[in-house]
Amino acid sequence: MAELKSASPSSTPPATHAEHMDISGRDYRATSVAGLPALEEHGVGIDHKIPQDDAIQAQPDLAWSRIRHYLREPLAEFFGTFILIMFGDGVVAQVVLSGGANGEYQSITWGWGLGVMLGVYTAGISGAHLNPAVTFANCVFRKFPWRKFFPYMIAQILGAMVASAVVYANYKSAIDVFEGGRSFRTVPGYSETATAGIFCTYPAPFMTKTGQFFSEFIASAMLMFLIYALKDDGNIGAGPLTPLGLFFIIFGIGACFGWETGYAINLARDFGPRLVSYMLGYGHEVWSAGNYYFWVPMVAPFFGCTFGGWLYDMFLWTGESPINTPGAGLYRLAQPKRSVWSNTYQERRGQITHA
Amino acid sequence: MAELKSASPSSTPPATHAEHMDISGRDYRATSVAGLPALEEHGVGIDHKIPQDDAIQAQPDLAWSRIRHYLREPLAEFFGTFILIMFGDGVVAQVVLSGGANGEYQSITWGWGLGVMLGVYTAGISGAHLNPAVTFANCVFRKFPWRKFFPYMIAQILGAMVASAVVYANYKSAIDVFEGGRSFRTVPGYSETATAGIFCTYPAPFMTKTGQFFSEFIASAMLMFLIYALKDDGNIGAGPLTPLGLFFIIFGIGACFGWETGYAINLARDFGPRLVSYMLGYGHEVWSAGNYYFWVPMVAPFFGCTFGGWLYDMFLWTGESPINTPGAGLYRLAQPKRSVWSNTYQERRGQITHA
Amino acid sequence: MAELKSASPSSTPPATHAEHMDISGRDYRATSVAGLPALEEHGVGIDHKIPQDDAIQAQPDLAWSRIRHYLREPLAEFFGTFILIMFGDGVVAQVVLSGGANGEYQSITWGWGLGVMLGVYTAGISGAHLNPAVTFANCVFRKFPWRKFFPYMIAQILGAMVASAVVYANYKSAIDVFEGGRSFRTVPGYSETATAGIFCTYPAPFMTKTGQFFSEFIASAMLMFLIYALKDDGNIGAGPLTPLGLFFIIFGIGACFGWETGYAINLARDFGPRLVSYMLGYGHEVWSAGNYYFWVPMVAPFFGCTFGGWLYDMFLWTGESPINTPGAGLYRLAQPKRSVWSNTYQERRGQITHA
Amino acid sequence: MAELKSASPSSTPPATHAEHMDISGRDYRATSVAGLPALEEHGVGIDHKIPQDDAIQAQPDLAWSRIRHYLREPLAEFFGTFILIMFGDGVVAQVVLSGGANGEYQSITWGWGLGVMLGVYTAGISGAHLNPAVTFANCVFRKFPWRKFFPYMIAQILGAMVASAVVYANYKSAIDVFEGGRSFRTVPGYSETATAGIFCTYPAPFMTKTGQFFSEFIASAMLMFLIYALKDDGNIGAGPLTPLGLFFIIFGIGACFGWETGYAINLARDFGPRLVSYMLGYGHEVWSAGNYYFWVPMVAPFFGCTFGGWLYDMFLWTGESPINTPGAGLYRLAQPKRSVWSNTYQERRGQITHA
Repeated sequence: MAELKSASPSSTPPATHAEHMDISGRDYRATSVAGLPALEEHGVGIDHKIPQDDAIQAQPDLAWSRIRHYLREPLAEFFGTFILIMFGDGVVAQVVLSGGANGEYQSITWGWGLGVMLGVYTAGISGAHLNPAVTFANCVFRKFPWRKFFPYMIAQILGAMVASAVVYANYKSAIDVFEGGRSFRTVPGYSETATAGIFCTYPAPFMTKTGQFFSEFIASAMLMFLIYALKDDGNIGAGPLTPLGLFFIIFGIGACFGWETGYAINLARDFGPRLVSYMLGYGHEVWSAGNYYFWVPMVAPFFGCTFGGWLYDMFLWTGESPINTPGAGLYRLAQPKRSVWSNTYQERRGQITHA
Repeated sequence: MAELKSASPSSTPPATHAEHMDISGRDYRATSVAGLPALEEHGVGIDHKIPQDDAIQAQPDLAWSRIRHYLREPLAEFFGTFILIMFGDGVVAQVVLSGGANGEYQSITWGWGLGVMLGVYTAGISGAHLNPAVTFANCVFRKFPWRKFFPYMIAQILGAMVASAVVYANYKSAIDVFEGGRSFRTVPGYSETATAGIFCTYPAPFMTKTGQFFSEFIASAMLMFLIYALKDDGNIGAGPLTPLGLFFIIFGIGACFGWETGYAINLARDFGPRLVSYMLGYGHEVWSAGNYYFWVPMVAPFFGCTFGGWLYDMFLWTGESPINTPGAGLYRLAQPKRSVWSNTYQERRGQITHA
Repeated sequence: MAELKSASPSSTPPATHAEHMDISGRDYRATSVAGLPALEEHGVGIDHKIPQDDAIQAQPDLAWSRIRHYLREPLAEFFGTFILIMFGDGVVAQVVLSGGANGEYQSITWGWGLGVMLGVYTAGISGAHLNPAVTFANCVFRKFPWRKFFPYMIAQILGAMVASAVVYANYKSAIDVFEGGRSFRTVPGYSETATAGIFCTYPAPFMTKTGQFFSEFIASAMLMFLIYALKDDGNIGAGPLTPLGLFFIIFGIGACFGWETGYAINLARDFGPRLVSYMLGYGHEVWSAGNYYFWVPMVAPFFGCTFGGWLYDMFLWTGESPINTPGAGLYRLAQPKRSVWSNTYQERRGQITHA
Repeated sequence: MAELKSASPSSTPPATHAEHMDISGRDYRATSVAGLPALEEHGVGIDHKIPQDDAIQAQPDLAWSRIRHYLREPLAEFFGTFILIMFGDGVVAQVVLSGGANGEYQSITWGWGLGVMLGVYTAGISGAHLNPAVTFANCVFRKFPWRKFFPYMIAQILGAMVASAVVYANYKSAIDVFEGGRSFRTVPGYSETATAGIFCTYPAPFMTKTGQFFSEFIASAMLMFLIYALKDDGNIGAGPLTPLGLFFIIFGIGACFGWETGYAINLARDFGPRLVSYMLGYGHEVWSAGNYYFWVPMVAPFFGCTFGGWLYDMFLWTGESPINTPGAGLYRLAQPKRSVWSNTYQERRGQITHA
C-alpha cells in the first residue's frame, strides 16, 4: 500500500494540527491545506457529508489516527469495493454452488445491486467510486484530482481481491463438492461444473470480440450517465436516495444487459478477483477463456464511462464541466498546459492568495 | 430535430442574457420571458428543482450553450425515453433470448419499472413525461403549454427509436442464434422463435379488439390517476420519492395488467420501436399482427390518460384544474376562445402588466 | 351513497364559506366547524398534509365543489380501496389465468403490497384506512370519530366492488378461455379451473375453522400493530416513508402468513369482491366454500386489528390512548357516558367555548 | 421477566415525577436521572427520536405507566424480536410447508429482510438491536451500558421464543399434513419431511465445524460493519432510511451467505426458537443435528459482530470509540479500572456535579 501514501505531504507539523482542532467541520476544507490533504467531495452521494476530522484530531498524537488520516480515502475505496465483491461474488457462489436451490438469476441482480448500494454507504468518505472507470470519468468531467486516480484504482483492486479470497474461503467446501474434488478448479466453457464464474465474468459463447466490447461499453455508459443524472441537483437529483438509486441502476444493468458478458463494467471488480482465481489454481484458462476476453472488462469500462459522462454533460448538465467551455471542451485539446488540464491547479492558487 | 426548435423565439438579444445572469434561480421563470422560453415546471417529480440556467449563461457566447438552451426540454424527454426503452426493451431481449435462463416474467416488470424510474431522474428538467399521453393530459388538466405537445412527442418517439436500435445492435448475435440465422426476423404469432416482441408489444392471441383497447385504456387510466395522486401535495404526495413511486406504479401495471396486451400505455414506447423493428426487417407483420393491433397502443393511452386525469381531478384534486371551474369544466366547451383554452394566455397578460 | 352524507350538517350558509376563505390551511380545522365537517387527520401517513380546501372554496358557488367537500373522505376511501383491489385482484387474475407464465406466487405479494402502497397515496385525504377493521381500531385507540365508521366502511366496500368488476371486465376473455367457456364460472375446491379465487380468498383445504380464524386474526393483529409502529413518532416513525413501509408490511404478511387463508385481513377487500363474484354468476359456492369460510375474513380482522392496536398501545405507545388512562382503560367500561366514550365530545365543547 | 427490572432503582419519589413533567422532551436525558433510568440512544436508527415520556408522565399515578417506564427498553426489544421472528419463521414455514407453491428461496430472503426492517421500526425506543451480539458490540464500541446487556438479551430471546410458538400454532395443521401426522416432528437430515428448519437453522450437510463457524462469523461481521456504516453520519449515513438499509443488508446476507448455515447470525433468533422446537417435541436432534451445530450460531455472532465493529472503527470511523484511544484501545487492556471500562461511569460523575 506504499503507493497510496504518495498523494500526501511527507511531513506535517503538530502545530498545524492544533490549529486545525479549533476549526469546525464546515470550514474544514479550506483549512486542511495547512498540513493535511483535502478530502474533496466528489462522486456518488456525499452531498450532505459532515466531516468528522475534528474527532480524529482530538487525539493528534495517536500514530494510527495520523496514518489513517492520509489513507482515509483509499481505505474507504478499499472497504467499499470489498463490500461490493463480498455480496456480488457471494451471491454468484450461492446460486451456482447450490444448483439454483438457494437462488436464481434474479438473486444475482439483487446481490450486485445491493452490494453496490451498501458499498456506497461504506465508502461515502471517498466519493464511493468503487470503480476505476468512474474515478477516471470524475477526473475528466468533475475536476476530481488526477493524482488520486492511481491510489483509488489500487485500493479498489485490492479490496476486490481480498473480498474474492474471503468468498473462496467461505465456499471452499461447497466448491470441492460441486467440482467433484479438491484438485478440480475449472473455468466456464471448459467444464460442466466450472466455478471460476463465481469470481469474475466470462462471456456467453456466441459473442464476438466486437460484441463483447460493445456490450461492456454500453452498460458502462449507462452506468456513468445515470450516476451523473442522480447526482445532478439541477435535475431532480436523488439526494439521500442516491445509494438506493444505484441499487436500481445496477439491478437494471444486470437484468437488461447482464447476460452477454456478465456486466463487469469495472476493472477492479473483474481483474482483481480474476487474478485471485488464477492464484487459487483455476489455471491459465481464466485469461484465455472467451478468446482472451479478460482485457475487455478492463478496457471497455473506461471508454464506456467516459462516453456516458460526456453524453450527460453534452446534452443535459449545465454545471461546471469541460464540455461547457468554448468548443465544447475541444479547444482544450490544443492547450496542453497545466493551468488548463489540472483539476487542482486553480484551487491551490486561490488558497495561496488567501493565506 | 428541426421541429423541436419551432417552439422558441427566433432571435434572442445578448443584452437580455446579461440581465438574466444577475437573477437568482428562484426568480428565473418570471424573467426568462425577456428572451428565452420559460421552462415550466409540470409533470412528474420536479417540485424541488433548482434551475441551473445561470450555469449555462455563464458562457452566453458559446454557441452550443445557446442552442442547447432552446432544446433543453426536448433533449431531456429524448434521453429520459431513451433510458426507459434501453432498460425496457433490454430486459425483454435478455429474458426472451436467454430462454428464461437469465430472467423471467418478473424481471420484465422490474426492468420497465426501473426504466421509468431512472428515465424520470434523467428527464426531470422537462417534467419527465416520457409519454405523449401524459403530456396530453398535462396540457388538458395542468396548464402545460399546448405548443410544447408536438416537440415533446417527437422527442419521446425519437428517444425510443434510438434506444431500440441500440438494444438491437447489442443483442444482434443473440437474435441471430435465437431466430436460427441472420436472415430470420419474425413476429410473435408467426413463429416459435419470434423476437419482434423485444421491441414493441403484441397482444395475447385470445384478445378481441375491444378487449385490447379496454386493457390499454384501463392501464393508462391507472397510470395517470396515480401520477396525479403522487404529485398532489394536498394529499400525502410522494415528494422526492416520486421516481420510486413510479417504479411501483409501472411494476404494478406490469404485474397486474401486463399479460393481455403487454402494457404499452405509451405511443412513444410502442410506435417508435415498432417502426425501428420494421426498418430492421421484421416485415409487414409488425403492423398486421394481432389483427392490426399496432394502432391500439397509439390511441388508447390518450383516452386512458385523459380519463385517469379526469377521474383524479373530478373526485380528489382540489387545486387548479378545468374540472374545478363552473360546470365541472363543461362550460368551457361552449367557449372556443383563446383566453379560455390557452394554458399560457393569462400568464403572458400578467407579465406584460408587470413589465 | 345517501348514507355517506348523513355525517354532514344539512344546511351550510354561504356567508360562513366566505369567512372560511380568509383562513390559512393551518387554522382550517378549528374553523371548519362553522359550517363544514372537519377532516380529522388520523390513520396512515398524513402527518405532513396541507389542507387544500381553500382551493375548493375559491369557487364556493360551484355545486360540485360543495357536494364534493362533504364527500371528500368517503371519496378518498372509495378510490384508495379501488386502487388496492385493482392491483390486488388484477395480479391474482394475471397469475392464475396465464397459468403462471406471467407471474408467480411472489408476484401476488408484490401486487397486494404495492396496491396498498398506491392506495394509501390515493387516500391520504381520509387517513387511508382502506379497511373497516383499521377504521374501527382507529375509533377505539386514536379518537377517530365513531360517526365516520359506517360511511368509511361503505365507501371501502363500494370501492372494492367496483374495482373487482373492472378486473372482471378486463379479464373476461381470459376467464372464458381458462374456465373452458362462457358459461363456466367455478370456485376453488369445486373445479380444477376455478377462477373465483381472483376476486376473494378461499382457505387451504386442510384448515379447520379455528385455524382459519386464528390465521386471519394473527395477520390482522400484525397489520395494526405495525401500522401503529410506523405512525409512532415517539418511536423511529416512518414519516414520509409510511406508504413504502406498508408495502413491506403487506408483502411480508403475504409471504409469511398468506398461504393458509389468502390474507384477506379486510372485510372490504374480501366481502365486496365476493359479492360481485356472486352477482357475476359464480354461484352459491362463493359463500359455502371452505365450510362457509366467507364470514371469517369479515369478522376476524376486527378482532385482530383491535388486538394488534391494544398490544401496541399497552406495551409501546406512550401517546394519548384509552390504554393510557386509569386501569389501562378498563375503568371506562364502567362509565357508559358520552363524555367518556365519544371521540368528538370534548372537542365540540372546546369549540363552542371559543365561539 | 424479574431480571429485567434489576436495572432500575427500587424507589422513585413522586415529587421527582412532578418536576420531570415540566421538562421538554429535548432535555429529557439530563433530568431523567432524578428518578428514572435514562433511555440512552444507541444502536440502529433512532437519531431523530423525540422522547415521548412526558406523555407517560401525564399520568404519573398510573401503576402501569410507571411499571412500563422501567420496562420500556426490554419491552421494545421483546416486540422487535417478536416481529422479526414472526416474519422470519413465518416465511420459512410457508415456503417449506407449501412445497414451494407459495414461495421460494427468494421469499425467505424477503421475509427475513423485512422482518428485521419492521422489527427495527417497532423497537426504535431501545435502539433496535434485536440481537445480543449487536448489543454486545454496542457495549464494546459505542458506550452502550454493560448493565443493560443481559436484560436486552433475555428480552430478545423471549421475544423470539413467543414468536416461534405463535408461528407453530398458526401452522400446526399444515405441519401435521406435511410431516404425515400429529405425532411426527422431525429434524432436517433425519427425515425427508422435516419441519424443524422452520424454527432455527441447520447447516448444509457438507459443512465442517470450522466452515460452519467461519460462515456465521463472516456474515455477522458484515452485519455489524454495515450497521455502523449506515449509522455513521460522518460517512453518508442512511438517516431515516436506516430500516430500509437493514432490509437490504439482511436480504444480501441471505442471498449471498445464507445457504451454508442459514444465516442465523443471532443467538436470540436461533437459540430461542430452537428451545421452543425442543419443547414442542422435535426431539434431541434439534441439538445434535449437524454434529451439535446448535452452539455455533450462539457463539460465532459475538465474535463476528465484535470483529465487524472493530473493522469499521479501526479503518473508517472517526467518532468516539475505544479504538480511537492510545494504542488503538489496547492500552485499556492493561487498565482494569472501572473509570476506563465502564460506559456509564463518567456520565454519572457529570450528573452528580450538575446536581
